[in-house]
Amino acid sequence: MKLASYSYKVALQDVDFTKKLKITRLIGYLLETAGRNAFENNFGIQHLQAENYTWVLSRLAVEMETYPLQDEEFIIETWIENAGRLFTTRNFCIKNLSGKLIGSSTSIWAMIDINTRRAVDLTDEYASFVVDKPSPCEHPRKMPPILCEPHCEYKVKYSDIDLNCHANSAKYIEWLLDTIENPKTFFENKHVARIELYYMNEALLGDVLSFYKENREEQVFLFEIKRNTDSICKMRLVF
Amino acid sequence: MKLASYSYKVALQDVDFTKKLKITRLIGYLLETAGRNAFENNFGIQHLQAENYTWVLSRLAVEMETYPLQDEEFIIETWIENAGRLFTTRNFCIKNLSGKLIGSSTSIWAMIDINTRRAVDLTDEYASFVVDKPSPCEHPRKMPPILCEPHCEYKVKYSDIDLNCHANSAKYIEWLLDTIENPKTFFENKHVARIELYYMNEALLGDVLSFYKENREEQVFLFEIKRNTDSICKMRLVF
Repeated sequence: MKLASYSYKVALQDVDFTKKLKITRLIGYLLETAGRNAFENNFGIQHLQAENYTWVLSRLAVEMETYPLQDEEFIIETWIENAGRLFTTRNFCIKNLSGKLIGSSTSIWAMIDINTRRAVDLTDEYASFVVDKPSPCEHPRKMPPILCEPHCEYKVKYSDIDLNCHANSAKYIEWLLDTIENPKTFFENKHVARIELYYMNEALLGDVLSFYKENREEQVFLFEIKRNTDSICKMRLVF
Repeated sequence: MKLASYSYKVALQDVDFTKKLKITRLIGYLLETAGRNAFENNFGIQHLQAENYTWVLSRLAVEMETYPLQDEEFIIETWIENAGRLFTTRNFCIKNLSGKLIGSSTSIWAMIDINTRRAVDLTDEYASFVVDKPSPCEHPRKMPPILCEPHCEYKVKYSDIDLNCHANSAKYIEWLLDTIENPKTFFENKHVARIELYYMNEALLGDVLSFYKENREEQVFLFEIKRNTDSICKMRLVF
């Protein structure tokens, strides 16, 4: 249960025109895996709701060598690497059915009190769930500020929000990828080798957001979502 | 296999702030059920791809008395009611775990040749799959034309499209529901009792669409998506 494996199959609705698992859906499966494993260990969002706590994703990095194809089965292994005063690290390995490592991920979470929005100390209660095994995936580094003009504005809609009335983690990625020009040519020829996400603030229903995009090095894109001067989310993509 | 049942559980990401299964996700489960049952009977999209055929959804109606709640399990029964020269009718019953009927649906599909875009005659090959049982759900009627001015324009984005490079059926519903004003108050107080969808044309990546909305009777909303003068999709919502 501490180091658990879950198997999935790439559904028709999980792929784009390249017939490969979309990065947003891959991250969807990672978050679903985190939720399932937390639930099985009795600290899922469903358990926390009763005590007015919830999990908040702070940072996520994913590295992929190859993406599973439509109808292909794949396995996600997950474990908690540490649990500290403010944050816990949950790692993932993504494997194909032959057991070959095709990708990996690391994520940093806080547990907050829904009313006070303050983080809960995780040191004692979660120590017994820790597996001392690092992720093959490099940790998310600090992102430099983006200095360009906003690419476009966007108002958060009903279809974007979840049960907490805020946009969920995968929506930010969709919005930012949608700022890429000529997506057909782009995604036919490029492969996301690494993605880093930094979640700073929630985007709520009706919020007006600005999207920023900078192509600093040839294979590296930096993105940011802001509400006025508040940073909501930053994303780094390496192709 | 001809009349099959599938069970599902309402996931965290399937609900909105009312903690009830969202209509878009319900329709997602109905389409997934259609796909699974077709696959098990050897006429799934995966089987048809090899012969250059595909299924195209033409009309869909759903009626719901109550919606399953977060974490609740529910059952979808499905069967083919008829298979004709151009269309086949697939029905659904939605039940809770006690077996109580909580909703029903009926859908009309064509099988088309991907190259010629022409419909395939289904009479002979699918006769053996027909179960002579009507759906409790009333068939979609003809929709009157909407005469108002367009509500807004929208450009089809990378995150909207599927493996065929067109927006999938659930996206149309999201776009149209997003035109409703004050969604928090609206969806807190209203319950979709019936939804009808009429799919006329595909919306492709980069298409610029216009959305139309008319509140003709108090509890009835009519919607339409057009590309220039071509109708892409119509939707009737009864609350």
